[in-house]
Amino acid sequence: MQESSRMEGTVKPKQIESVESILEKYIPEDELKEVKRILFGQNRGTSVSVQPVNQEATDIANANNFQVLFSKILAEKEQLRQPRIVRIGIIQNSIGAPTNAPIHDQYMAIQNKIEKMIDAAGAMGVNVLCLQETWHMPFAFCTRERYPWVEFAQPVTGEATQFIQRMARKYNMVIVSPMLERDEVHGSTIHNTAVVVGNNGNIIGKSRKNHIPRTGDFNESTYYMESTLGHPVFETVFGKIGINICYGRHHNLNWLAYGLNGSEIVFNPSATVTGLSEPMWGVEARNAAMTNNYFVGSINRVGTEHFPNEFTSGDGKPAHKDFGHFYGSSYFSSPDNCRSPGLSRVQDGLNIAEVDLNLCQQVKDKWNFQMTARYEMYAKFLTDYIDPNYQPQIVRDPSIKKN
Amino acid sequence: MQESSRMEGTVKPKQIESVESILEKYIPEDELKEVKRILFGQNRGTSVSVQPVNQEATDIANANNFQVLFSKILAEKEQLRQPRIVRIGIIQNSIGAPTNAPIHDQYMAIQNKIEKMIDAAGAMGVNVLCLQETWHMPFAFCTRERYPWVEFAQPVTGEATQFIQRMARKYNMVIVSPMLERDEVHGSTIHNTAVVVGNNGNIIGKSRKNHIPRTGDFNESTYYMESTLGHPVFETVFGKIGINICYGRHHNLNWLAYGLNGSEIVFNPSATVTGLSEPMWGVEARNAAMTNNYFVGSINRVGTEHFPNEFTSGDGKPAHKDFGHFYGSSYFSSPDNCRSPGLSRVQDGLNIAEVDLNLCQQVKDKWNFQMTARYEMYAKFLTDYIDPNYQPQIVRDPSIKKN
Repeated sequence: MQESSRMEGTVKPKQIESVESILEKYIPEDELKEVKRILFGQNRGTSVSVQPVNQEATDIANANNFQVLFSKILAEKEQLRQPRIVRIGIIQNSIGAPTNAPIHDQYMAIQNKIEKMIDAAGAMGVNVLCLQETWHMPFAFCTRERYPWVEFAQPVTGEATQFIQRMARKYNMVIVSPMLERDEVHGSTIHNTAVVVGNNGNIIGKSRKNHIPRTGDFNESTYYMESTLGHPVFETVFGKIGINICYGRHHNLNWLAYGLNGSEIVFNPSATVTGLSEPMWGVEARNAAMTNNYFVGSINRVGTEHFPNEFTSGDGKPAHKDFGHFYGSSYFSSPDNCRSPGLSRVQDGLNIAEVDLNLCQQVKDKWNFQMTARYEMYAKFLTDYIDPNYQPQIVRDPSIKKN
Repeated sequence: MQESSRMEGTVKPKQIESVESILEKYIPEDELKEVKRILFGQNRGTSVSVQPVNQEATDIANANNFQVLFSKILAEKEQLRQPRIVRIGIIQNSIGAPTNAPIHDQYMAIQNKIEKMIDAAGAMGVNVLCLQETWHMPFAFCTRERYPWVEFAQPVTGEATQFIQRMARKYNMVIVSPMLERDEVHGSTIHNTAVVVGNNGNIIGKSRKNHIPRTGDFNESTYYMESTLGHPVFETVFGKIGINICYGRHHNLNWLAYGLNGSEIVFNPSATVTGLSEPMWGVEARNAAMTNNYFVGSINRVGTEHFPNEFTSGDGKPAHKDFGHFYGSSYFSSPDNCRSPGLSRVQDGLNIAEVDLNLCQQVKDKWNFQMTARYEMYAKFLTDYIDPNYQPQIVRDPSIKKN
């Protein structure tokens, strides 16, 4: 929409780096502390503590031009349970080659980038990692062209997953790999899928996108439909993981279902642009983490992707070849109402949070949201609501004349 | 908790006025614009536009030591519907007399304050107004003493409502009056209720608090239980109104039900203190407004209330006589992802937003959250979930040994 000046993953220089960087640049320490407390929350009485990144990861990042952030979000000590410390990583990246390059070259350019970023995650001892939505391709669904883009689709057991399996084994890491899936068994259909690879390199299972946008450049139902796989939660050696793909973050019931199925970490791999959703980005995931009492890793790709042929956006404006700047800003939300710093709005990055998963139950025990939730009432409410003849509970001022 | 130095509605001077005031004090205009866009959203391409308050309201506010804010949140012009411009007001206030004064004196001290604030609302042409939770009394439920506090309870037709009816008639204003209700017909029980008074001074109906906290100082179930009145939406001459009282803001299903019943404005009259919920205050209501596509007026009382007898808070700390600073910060959220400035964290105030209610449907049409919501799936999900033998959808890594 507003950025279209250069190619591949770059943006106009006037893009700000992040809100946090501006606050820190100008606001004096005392007042900054209060601003951060109110805007970003507190974990055990202080802002989320930012930690140094080790030398090995720093070197990899500097050599490959990406950012690494590292924070800690801790919990109280308990008497009967040991702390369950897990390092969670999320990766945001631009594409690696022009969108008119051969498909496999484009794929390899991204895989090569990602490999370095996973190396850095490995150097930092990350236990659970999630990549961005359909990480192995440009987000070409705005074009509404089937070819060549569907050629990026792969079976769950394809090349992308095999690469992820290698990396998982190499670093004893659980890796969530959001990808465009070709389901050869079921009519060769395409799906927006997340494959969960265990720390031994085994494929634990897959989840699919539950809510498909149909707005502006994002009518992805040209390519794939809503998941019929429910809200699976993957129990890994490093915690229970749900994956709420992209547009599902606007649907509170979707977040809820992943929570009620036991998630301790929910990833939200996304692709969304400046001007459309950015003011929602810092709100929805945090609300989900607070009200469902799990950690959220929010991931957005970064950069501007230009396509060979022009397309329109259903907004009355002239045809164009890109649909705006993916603003990155990937970050973590915690069950106790705080958030980590976000990655850059303009650069590739790896964000890491060391968390104690015990915090999920501790916050549940403190706030009692689940105990006071009255799910019976809402099961009945929704069952009534889906009746085509549902009558909303309206109390009308009798002095209003009916039209 | 942290503030206990003085009496009635005052706080230690180190309390900041608001986050907005600090951002505006330090950040240069260009970068401030970007920070505001990302943190507070945009309405038709710009930040919510702050408007001048007229002379009459300014004079009343100055004479009575409260703040008035006024913003506009507009919509696009449509071909078939006229704009539906409504001025919405929300009031936050400290109590007016010490909590050991005679009950009726305490009540009158608050009523006298509120009367001036409604006068200012009238001078500004407010159409729909909501007061704070149990506006006619201190928030004494932390004491767990039944007497004298239950003496503040009144029947829906009592003195507090009669006062509101007079003001509603005087200013042709719909007024939502959140109060402690004594239901004499039903066992003389007490309820946390909101009475909706029409612009002719008629009582349209009542709503009650759906979710009752049971955490720390807030186990209000000593006094009243959960509503059995559902999620009524009141159709007034100035729009359709739902009331989500206080703790209900942590429950996404509660927000959802008010939305599905047709709310265009949902008020969230609350009472909540610094250190407990403040980082959630700017998140939950905005998430509700965005994802359900209605306006939200979030109201929190202001000041520190000291009680005659000491009480404990279930947190292992010594007994004390106040439970912290109510941080005010009342504000509006819009269906298009933006928010108004908030009132002060330390002073009484009236916040007004002129809105076009057509924005609700326009945002629904743009984002299609309702169309893509899959309510059938979630009706079934919740119905399954409430079965005591529900089996969560867990996919376990087979390499994990069962305990």
